[in-house]
Amino acid sequence: GDLLGGGGEEEEGEDIARKVFRTRAFVANYQDSFTAIERCPKPVIAAVHRACIGAGVDMITACDIRLCTDNSFFCVKEVDIGLAADVGTLQRLPKVIGNESLVRDLCFTARKMYAAEAKSCGLVSQMFKEKKSMMQGAMAMAKLIASKSPVAVQGTKLALIHARDHSVSEGLQWIKDWNAAMLHTQDIPKSVMGAMTKKAPIFSKL
Amino acid sequence: GDLLGGGGEEEEGEDIARKVFRTRAFVANYQDSFTAIERCPKPVIAAVHRACIGAGVDMITACDIRLCTDNSFFCVKEVDIGLAADVGTLQRLPKVIGNESLVRDLCFTARKMYAAEAKSCGLVSQMFKEKKSMMQGAMAMAKLIASKSPVAVQGTKLALIHARDHSVSEGLQWIKDWNAAMLHTQDIPKSVMGAMTKKAPIFSKL
Amino acid sequence: GDLLGGGGEEEEGEDIARKVFRTRAFVANYQDSFTAIERCPKPVIAAVHRACIGAGVDMITACDIRLCTDNSFFCVKEVDIGLAADVGTLQRLPKVIGNESLVRDLCFTARKMYAAEAKSCGLVSQMFKEKKSMMQGAMAMAKLIASKSPVAVQGTKLALIHARDHSVSEGLQWIKDWNAAMLHTQDIPKSVMGAMTKKAPIFSKL
Amino acid sequence: GDLLGGGGEEEEGEDIARKVFRTRAFVANYQDSFTAIERCPKPVIAAVHRACIGAGVDMITACDIRLCTDNSFFCVKEVDIGLAADVGTLQRLPKVIGNESLVRDLCFTARKMYAAEAKSCGLVSQMFKEKKSMMQGAMAMAKLIASKSPVAVQGTKLALIHARDHSVSEGLQWIKDWNAAMLHTQDIPKSVMGAMTKKAPIFSKL
Amino acid sequence: GDLLGGGGEEEEGEDIARKVFRTRAFVANYQDSFTAIERCPKPVIAAVHRACIGAGVDMITACDIRLCTDNSFFCVKEVDIGLAADVGTLQRLPKVIGNESLVRDLCFTARKMYAAEAKSCGLVSQMFKEKKSMMQGAMAMAKLIASKSPVAVQGTKLALIHARDHSVSEGLQWIKDWNAAMLHTQDIPKSVMGAMTKKAPIFSKL
Amino acid sequence: GDLLGGGGEEEEGEDIARKVFRTRAFVANYQDSFTAIERCPKPVIAAVHRACIGAGVDMITACDIRLCTDNSFFCVKEVDIGLAADVGTLQRLPKVIGNESLVRDLCFTARKMYAAEAKSCGLVSQMFKEKKSMMQGAMAMAKLIASKSPVAVQGTKLALIHARDHSVSEGLQWIKDWNAAMLHTQDIPKSVMGAMTKKAPIFSKL
Repeated sequence: GDLLGGGGEEEEGEDIARKVFRTRAFVANYQDSFTAIERCPKPVIAAVHRACIGAGVDMITACDIRLCTDNSFFCVKEVDIGLAADVGTLQRLPKVIGNESLVRDLCFTARKMYAAEAKSCGLVSQMFKEKKSMMQGAMAMAKLIASKSPVAVQGTKLALIHARDHSVSEGLQWIKDWNAAMLHTQDIPKSVMGAMTKKAPIFSKL
Repeated sequence: GDLLGGGGEEEEGEDIARKVFRTRAFVANYQDSFTAIERCPKPVIAAVHRACIGAGVDMITACDIRLCTDNSFFCVKEVDIGLAADVGTLQRLPKVIGNESLVRDLCFTARKMYAAEAKSCGLVSQMFKEKKSMMQGAMAMAKLIASKSPVAVQGTKLALIHARDHSVSEGLQWIKDWNAAMLHTQDIPKSVMGAMTKKAPIFSKL
Repeated sequence: GDLLGGGGEEEEGEDIARKVFRTRAFVANYQDSFTAIERCPKPVIAAVHRACIGAGVDMITACDIRLCTDNSFFCVKEVDIGLAADVGTLQRLPKVIGNESLVRDLCFTARKMYAAEAKSCGLVSQMFKEKKSMMQGAMAMAKLIASKSPVAVQGTKLALIHARDHSVSEGLQWIKDWNAAMLHTQDIPKSVMGAMTKKAPIFSKL
Repeated sequence: GDLLGGGGEEEEGEDIARKVFRTRAFVANYQDSFTAIERCPKPVIAAVHRACIGAGVDMITACDIRLCTDNSFFCVKEVDIGLAADVGTLQRLPKVIGNESLVRDLCFTARKMYAAEAKSCGLVSQMFKEKKSMMQGAMAMAKLIASKSPVAVQGTKLALIHARDHSVSEGLQWIKDWNAAMLHTQDIPKSVMGAMTKKAPIFSKL
Repeated sequence: GDLLGGGGEEEEGEDIARKVFRTRAFVANYQDSFTAIERCPKPVIAAVHRACIGAGVDMITACDIRLCTDNSFFCVKEVDIGLAADVGTLQRLPKVIGNESLVRDLCFTARKMYAAEAKSCGLVSQMFKEKKSMMQGAMAMAKLIASKSPVAVQGTKLALIHARDHSVSEGLQWIKDWNAAMLHTQDIPKSVMGAMTKKAPIFSKL
Repeated sequence: GDLLGGGGEEEEGEDIARKVFRTRAFVANYQDSFTAIERCPKPVIAAVHRACIGAGVDMITACDIRLCTDNSFFCVKEVDIGLAADVGTLQRLPKVIGNESLVRDLCFTARKMYAAEAKSCGLVSQMFKEKKSMMQGAMAMAKLIASKSPVAVQGTKLALIHARDHSVSEGLQWIKDWNAAMLHTQDIPKSVMGAMTKKAPIFSKL
């Protein structure tokens, strides 16, 4: 009731404009919760097991990498309860998978998309037989990423998010200014030395 | 002759600038015809049977969802008659399918892309054995979408088109302002009640 | 050392700001080298044989069409040497393949992506058994494109690059103004005549 | 009532979402009426005599050049009737006069700005003693502009509107593509000849 | 020392990249303090008395309306201490006063601009003889604005900020969607009734 | 003839499309010449003596600061020779002076604007009695700017140009990333020490 009615107590005699102001703040609050994942400077891996519905899709599209088990399914459910999804799916999903016909099919019909189709369209980049192997895969990937230079990894995440929202020319200008400082990090000689000596480099905390 | 020559009667002694002004209005007119499909507030499903060539591709990329029979093919034919496509294909196709290498191959060579490849790259989201089953599939999908809240469906279409053309941050701001009003629709309690009682809700005309 | 340290001689007592200015010019120079491929008015086909690593990926994503042999692999190697890729991969790869989960997996882990996956995700649009057949395929494609109107082909390339970096509405306005002049080319009647007479048209140099 | 209530007949039992859809179309219609002035390819001169209030300000900010008599005043009246101006003033006025403090003062307080201040802040570029001399001045300016090449004048208007809404770099690219064709007009040699011979050139209709 | 050195404790052996990350968060924090003024939904009036230097200019350019006494001066002081202003002046000042030559003069030379020039260029919209009369003027203006519909005033502020950062076309679309709901406020009939009866309307809290 | 006809030799039988390609490269070349001034990392002061016409206006609007003698005049002459100005005036002038009515008056009528009006509208920020005093004023200003930290001055120029072409929010993000490195310059302690000891600081070459 509350959620679908636009959040918070409805006040006696409140006019439409005031309802809209109140609901606007309410939606902003939900949006920010999911955008916080995107703003996390470290890569975030979503591992989906079984049902991922409505706000679940909003959440995983704000993550960097998506994995799932083969008994998973995904459903942009919002039209079935009378609203356009408003906390990220409609904004991020079309940029996560480059397939507008599928995106609109999913968002207009609210049908379930099963794991195999999700893998084939790129919503997830790996599909696993079961939850346990997926969690092992996710942890192995997380460890691998964590073993690398945080300057390199976090710069990469910032650059990819910037690139998504700008032209190639603007993106190149951003990374040029960014790396003009970052190329002076000690992580570069440490990484090169590590590669030559086959010993894992130890990077300072960022 | 007329079409390819830039439209309308050429006037005696018309200079280049004036030819260009005349042709510009002519192209604008064609573009608007296809953009009208995109501006239609209701989802539009394209069902392709056999050849979809040149302006056909311009038209279907302005639709929301694309289906085809397995004997269909698609051809961005314009370079073969000496021009760059100018009524939508070059603008929309790369955003419809996230595969720049394929898009450029198709647009530079004017080769035919057959149904299986069109399905695999996402130009169409379903492929059917024959025209009849496709039309049944298209009608079923249309009915399914039509059974849902028009406030939800039309808001979803507007949001997806806005998202395609803006950053994620701008897109989120748009849907926040939009849903601040739309979440107060009667379609939400009607949809929820319909789901609980298993009876199809009846929505007012939008 | 030089490259990774940000380019050029480090000067005695140079402060951070001055190092950054020096490195910024250095990165700009590298970026421009790859962007030159994108600025080439004629389509550029990349034919990849075996390893395509780091700057190799920066380079091929600035090309129009990508082909590879089935023993090729691709690797966004930069995080392994402590930096975020800064000469094009992070800006262009996500627009070349519409699959954010895969892009981030590749860029954060620096893992190898082999030819089959590169074909399936659309990084390359054709995969060949061996180098020789690939080079024949690439040359055949190049000849096919070169046989077509240069006004049409170069306009198409300009339009696709413009479209990638703008909204659909801005893209349509651009091609409208562009074709308002280009539709008056002699290449159109020549192309039409060629198609009718089955004789290859001869276009003037552009 | 009608106008302020959002346009058109309110229907029995109409929910908020449906009211908003109806009102949205209503506002769009008003906006388009004023934007039509901006879309007119020929320069439009507004000559203001006495009161210019509310929609009057929306209208004149969509014009190219503004003149007034010294007994004129201007008033962004909308807050006084409970609404934010929505047919152009808030979008165009700050770009017409580069003085944000004044714009917000005018729009928040709905105070009258008299002719002298309007001249000093640039809202009008000429102030006249009386209506008759203003109309003569406006007609003289219109005749002067009409005596010049329509290719030059209309291209200038298009370029200025484009420049207002884009970065300098985008603006330069636009005029480059535009003039690539327009510089081939016969109006250039005619204009040059006219200047040399002191005889007014006669330009073809555009 | 702290402020100018980029904020926070410098850690032993911290490399350039890590210094930059730390300083970046530090600058973001300062920026947000001033942007908070712009985000305040109610108009903010700055009343400047005597010196307004450095961060003072950052602060007042984030306000809506600026007033000053005639013994005030304004100084973009940052270059004198070795840095480019980074908490708003360089971004907002050129949009607050439409005079690039003056803006660059002020920002490159760090010279003082006295009240009369500040009034003439539009940095302030009113100049007062002394602090007391300015504060009375500011309070009178604040009371006047506060007597008006908050739906109208806050929508106006949001629209002006949106307009500053978007094209006219985008701005019109925003206010159209916004007012589609806001025109249904009770503040409109209340305002109209108030104007007719000459009695101040009482608006509900927003 | 050459210039106005679009540059370079016209080739026998060249079609419209080919003329346009040739002219486009020709205009790009001219534009780049003026944009080079804007790209110069150091502030550029234009000192105008007497007539500043056509390309002269293109040139000075690409400069940072404009001065003139009181016998100067400015004329956007292009419409008088049959073309829309295409090397910068139409893009930069409206952003240099915040007065659209005046800009359009000047650009449509090609009338002369004399020094006093140029000072009043902000095209120039100082007006001098004669050339000699202007050159002294310009040199004094240049010396003053040159005495300050080059890190501060050049960062300020980059930030102002970025701000002109982006939203406030984008501009703040840019300066945040930029100063995250630049605040570590030795120019800051040197500047502060210089201010305290009243001795001009000596900055390293940038």
